[in-house]
Amino acid sequence: MAVGVAKTPELLPIAGVRVGTACAGIKRTTRDDLVVFELAEGGSMAATFTRNAFCAAPVTVAKEHLGQAPRWLVVNSGNANAGTGARGMEHARASCQAVAALTGGAANQVLPFSTGVIGEYLPLEKIALALPEAVADLSENHWHKAMTAIMTTDTRPKGASRAVDIDGHTVTVTGIAKGSGMIHPNMATMLGYVATDARLPQPLLQQALSRAVELSFNRVTVDGDTSTNDACVLLASGYSSAPAITSADSPHYAAFAAAVEAVCKELAEAIARDGEGATKLMRIQVAKAEDEAEAHQVANTVALSPLVKTAFFASDPNWGRILAAVGRAGCDNLDIERITIDLNGVRIVENGGRAPSYTEEAGVAAMAPEEIVVAIDLGRGDSACEVLTCDFSFDYVKINAEYRT
Amino acid sequence: MAVGVAKTPELLPIAGVRVGTACAGIKRTTRDDLVVFELAEGGSMAATFTRNAFCAAPVTVAKEHLGQAPRWLVVNSGNANAGTGARGMEHARASCQAVAALTGGAANQVLPFSTGVIGEYLPLEKIALALPEAVADLSENHWHKAMTAIMTTDTRPKGASRAVDIDGHTVTVTGIAKGSGMIHPNMATMLGYVATDARLPQPLLQQALSRAVELSFNRVTVDGDTSTNDACVLLASGYSSAPAITSADSPHYAAFAAAVEAVCKELAEAIARDGEGATKLMRIQVAKAEDEAEAHQVANTVALSPLVKTAFFASDPNWGRILAAVGRAGCDNLDIERITIDLNGVRIVENGGRAPSYTEEAGVAAMAPEEIVVAIDLGRGDSACEVLTCDFSFDYVKINAEYRT
Repeated sequence: MAVGVAKTPELLPIAGVRVGTACAGIKRTTRDDLVVFELAEGGSMAATFTRNAFCAAPVTVAKEHLGQAPRWLVVNSGNANAGTGARGMEHARASCQAVAALTGGAANQVLPFSTGVIGEYLPLEKIALALPEAVADLSENHWHKAMTAIMTTDTRPKGASRAVDIDGHTVTVTGIAKGSGMIHPNMATMLGYVATDARLPQPLLQQALSRAVELSFNRVTVDGDTSTNDACVLLASGYSSAPAITSADSPHYAAFAAAVEAVCKELAEAIARDGEGATKLMRIQVAKAEDEAEAHQVANTVALSPLVKTAFFASDPNWGRILAAVGRAGCDNLDIERITIDLNGVRIVENGGRAPSYTEEAGVAAMAPEEIVVAIDLGRGDSACEVLTCDFSFDYVKINAEYRT
Repeated sequence: MAVGVAKTPELLPIAGVRVGTACAGIKRTTRDDLVVFELAEGGSMAATFTRNAFCAAPVTVAKEHLGQAPRWLVVNSGNANAGTGARGMEHARASCQAVAALTGGAANQVLPFSTGVIGEYLPLEKIALALPEAVADLSENHWHKAMTAIMTTDTRPKGASRAVDIDGHTVTVTGIAKGSGMIHPNMATMLGYVATDARLPQPLLQQALSRAVELSFNRVTVDGDTSTNDACVLLASGYSSAPAITSADSPHYAAFAAAVEAVCKELAEAIARDGEGATKLMRIQVAKAEDEAEAHQVANTVALSPLVKTAFFASDPNWGRILAAVGRAGCDNLDIERITIDLNGVRIVENGGRAPSYTEEAGVAAMAPEEIVVAIDLGRGDSACEVLTCDFSFDYVKINAEYRT
């Protein structure tokens, strides 16, 4: 299940970034599960990683290699190479060496990524056998194949592109992501690969990515479980004819950063729509909070509440559960008399209780659509935040009870 | 569903505390849903309440009346009188007045409690009509009836008693509780009523209750949702022939406090066993944490993870999810090399990954029982904490999707 109509996104190629896929047969032999990205020489790379202390071996290695002028990414689905100790580290390094041997680069110029089940050793031989095919497949036009190859429990591939004009020249941003379960905002919360032909120094690239991730992937939650393998990478080839972006204060940077943010937000929304077992998409919009952190905290508390999520699954306007979640979000000195809550425009809470204008019929109507805006006004500041989430369905339990079988 | 064999607890009467029930027909007309407790004159009362900012009207009124030498409690199930604004406050006060009119007390000597659906107005007339029957029913021997009358989605009544010897005299402690969903440690997380014939000043009574609640009800979580109506009350009649307890440093206090703690822990465990849709009981035991707060935080993170809870439902030794939950619990500078995790005595994690001795067969065997101990050793301090929780099943979703229908 997933929320809304599936659209196959149009993915624009990025000059200077090539993508190749192959089937290593890690979990299934019927579809590609291995991806190699190649960034042209002279490009730059930025990344964000999970904050989970038990981060996977590939995350540790990718962090080490990020500062070494990396040019390749190797990604496998079907196995997370997490919780695998010293042997997992050897496997992650061996993947990098295998790519280096095929491409003529150095092992520390390769960033490894894995996604899938935790705690099983990476089938290194399968990967080594399939890598030559993935490298031979490298092309600027293979984003669609990569988008599918990185999927695990995803029911839909996720991709997005934007083209922006900078001084009469086009700069393009294209991204793909995977993520459906173990999704909770804490750095990246999934795998995302975004590339651009813009030219800009690495610190600016990192700044643009970090902010975009904060406003997109870190604002999506499916189950509150921050993964061990989350990562998001931004590759910049500099192949666009647009002038180099040299300052974070320039309008060029603003235009570029907005395009990266738009791509990341579209990918993040696609992840929420495809949350495990999802039948509804909820936009939890908190306004008039004291600061952004408070707004985020309240939105997250509502978005993570199993009772709220099951009520949405049932299309039941059991708004008392939303009120209870706001009340336990941990805001100091919350004045409940000032809080209003609206469900798709229907006022449900004001003056500390049920809105006098509320009727069960209006509530039922508000809960019927597949997409629901939950607007919470705390009435005490100027900060806002939107978090996207999905409902908790029978299929969520089914998918996660049967994941390894 | 519930975990383990249902035992009808033997509930010892408390001299000086009488209990009466009646059927007000608030949600169903087939069972009692109204309880009145009466404490003999000269007794004392202590209480803990939910920290939810949207606390229910009866919670606000009960807090006001706690300092007024209260002698009665009035409890209804089937309606929480929460999210009901000014009208809800009037209803809560009116319930107290109705009890006062029947018993000859003052309205501010009555503490009101409600549990059930949030956001609907209390059917005050039904309660007023049934109250005379409940008051006429007052008896020291009606704890069993009260235990059933306070239930909502509970599938089992919950009660416990202890008798302790103090200087050759018996002091008795009896408690009942309700709770199955919207259960998460933050003060009381359910309704609990505990009574004793011990004689001790109110501050000591409050101290004993607060500590017992911290170690029992605040260590149980079903769904992470702290209710709007949580409360736990301890009534002390002083009718025992045992000497008065006058100091928190005395052995008498220690014996009494241990009995209160034992009753609260037995009730708390009964709540976890009866968690909505529960098929398994998990004891998340964190050891060697830097402090109790850290131990509690790690245990809670594991206990609340939907991915961990669905894996337990499936009896799937997907221990990577436990490892991932520990890793995201927010401990600073966690050295994952020092952490060990055991499932019912089977070592699953050590040295930062899967234990070399671990086999899938051993993991499957460890996950098979209805009760599972998850032992997490952080290897960095001397503090420990145990949190009880249950699994996430199809029935959890079913119960909460259909709660109001």
